[in-house]
Amino acid sequence: MKNFDLSLYLVLDANLCPSPQDMVRVTLEAVKGGCTLVQLRAPEWKKKKQLEAALLLKQALVGTGVPLLIDDHVDITLIAKADGVHVGQEDLPPNEARDILGPDAIIGLSVGSLLELNSVTDAVDYLGVGPVFSTKTKKDAGLAIGTDGLGSIVRKATLPVVAIGGINATNASSCISAGANGVAVVSAICGSDDPQKASRTIYKAAFG
Amino acid sequence: MKNFDLSLYLVLDANLCPSPQDMVRVTLEAVKGGCTLVQLRAPEWKKKKQLEAALLLKQALVGTGVPLLIDDHVDITLIAKADGVHVGQEDLPPNEARDILGPDAIIGLSVGSLLELNSVTDAVDYLGVGPVFSTKTKKDAGLAIGTDGLGSIVRKATLPVVAIGGINATNASSCISAGANGVAVVSAICGSDDPQKASRTIYKAAFG
Repeated sequence: MKNFDLSLYLVLDANLCPSPQDMVRVTLEAVKGGCTLVQLRAPEWKKKKQLEAALLLKQALVGTGVPLLIDDHVDITLIAKADGVHVGQEDLPPNEARDILGPDAIIGLSVGSLLELNSVTDAVDYLGVGPVFSTKTKKDAGLAIGTDGLGSIVRKATLPVVAIGGINATNASSCISAGANGVAVVSAICGSDDPQKASRTIYKAAFG
Repeated sequence: MKNFDLSLYLVLDANLCPSPQDMVRVTLEAVKGGCTLVQLRAPEWKKKKQLEAALLLKQALVGTGVPLLIDDHVDITLIAKADGVHVGQEDLPPNEARDILGPDAIIGLSVGSLLELNSVTDAVDYLGVGPVFSTKTKKDAGLAIGTDGLGSIVRKATLPVVAIGGINATNASSCISAGANGVAVVSAICGSDDPQKASRTIYKAAFG
């Protein structure tokens, strides 16, 4: 049985964490604050630097039980022995990722509409649904779907859902109320002076 | 024994060939004109589109004996069953690519200076050396090293070398004279109205 917890899903952003070392620092603080899953998302970085970050993060997370996922790149996932990969609609198909990574890998897929639910296959373990609110950290994100849009996708989905896009302590609970299993947070943790406190505050806001 | 011929190495450019279908058309014409190796380089495209192009190109090249290499992405190379990968100094390390792709894959490494020769390992099969002349098709290419720079790297290199960067029919022979085994061409073929004729003309200019 695959063991992962979408409750407080940290997405590390290369602009807010400009070095692999920054990413490690934010991650360790966030894990102390209750973060349950970490994704490395650094499309701006060349792959050597992304791999360096993945290796450091994987090492830093040893013993925490918190899995590390890699955005987009199945090869980096494989080399860094990360726990899985998150792919978007225009990235490598989940089935191809599964063939390479094997049955134990965690594979997530971004879904931004009911139509995109058609791209879900048996290879997918969870859905990242959004952007729920408007966001500046992902340039190619679509229009915000709101908690109504989130709810309509959750009701049709047969997999666990993590809500993403502009989520912070003030709106996290509305995503859980709409049916999401967890919240994915980027700038509200990566951009915070105190990632541990920010994580704890968002977790409490979401789950009480 | 690995079998590849660097003589006339076509690098498909996503800006000059805006669709996977354009890439297939240019490739088939170039192969008729004497092209011996093809690389897919489309960093501007999301990986789903790059994979689509790789699969179409691999299929189009069946029976031609011309190998297909993928720029940067080991995962796409694996999924598309391409013949190998070309990596730069800031991409995934050649040794990691070799571990994933196995002994039969062709692995190329970009080298732009004598210092960068230090990054060559047993995992590498050939070197892409340049930019020899100034180029507009690769945004992150360094300053042109000229045929003198090319020659100095060729003399120290223990692997076959393909020259790259601003190469066309007027300067191809100077690269071969400087010791390169072949020339890699981007815009002089991809940007030509007649890629077959352009390939034949460059091949003749380079090798007589």
